[in-house]
Amino acid sequence: METLSNPAPGQLFVHHVMFYLKNPKSEADRAKLLEGLNKMAKIPTIRMVHIGTPAATNRDVIERSYTYSWLCLFDSPADEEAYQKHPIHDDFRNNYASLWDKVVIYDSIGPKR
Amino acid sequence: METLSNPAPGQLFVHHVMFYLKNPKSEADRAKLLEGLNKMAKIPTIRMVHIGTPAATNRDVIERSYTYSWLCLFDSPADEEAYQKHPIHDDFRNNYASLWDKVVIYDSIGPKR
Repeated sequence: METLSNPAPGQLFVHHVMFYLKNPKSEADRAKLLEGLNKMAKIPTIRMVHIGTPAATNRDVIERSYTYSWLCLFDSPADEEAYQKHPIHDDFRNNYASLWDKVVIYDSIGPKR
Repeated sequence: METLSNPAPGQLFVHHVMFYLKNPKSEADRAKLLEGLNKMAKIPTIRMVHIGTPAATNRDVIERSYTYSWLCLFDSPADEEAYQKHPIHDDFRNNYASLWDKVVIYDSIGPKR
């Protein structure tokens, strides 16, 4: 396997963020974060994006206390880095970070199939 | 928003599993789990699958102590349920579960974009 810091072409970078809101029962706060996520979905290096909420599945090993799941796929670590540095991402942090209590992020890389 | 238990057509179901191995430094155990995941990738209701390892990104909010990330997309909750009940999935549990210490699963649903 190639080193993770220097992945081969043909890899796919998965960036998955779970947002835990300060006020998860507030429809206004949920709508506001969704507004911000929909803006962020326009960052051009994103190959595919999905905004989700916990599914109905409910087993012990399933973590479902987050409010929104934000899943992005990128063609490379460089594309993900460009997303992190994009002005739309800066605006998202500046305008919406007050809504959440915490985020948990999983960044993983592996071959395209 | 429609109820989560009865999602509208045009939704995408994200199933993301983080595997934490008992012996994460064992190349043999890592290879064996990867073998099992590659078998499981053949379950026919999977729309898209990605097998990853932690990327080089490293910030406080990024959780990177898992060994493998297993991300599957499905066209519906029914397709994900069929995957859970597929004989290949049973074989995976029976033959590979001894390798991991824990799994953390995020199932989320939201509109296709």
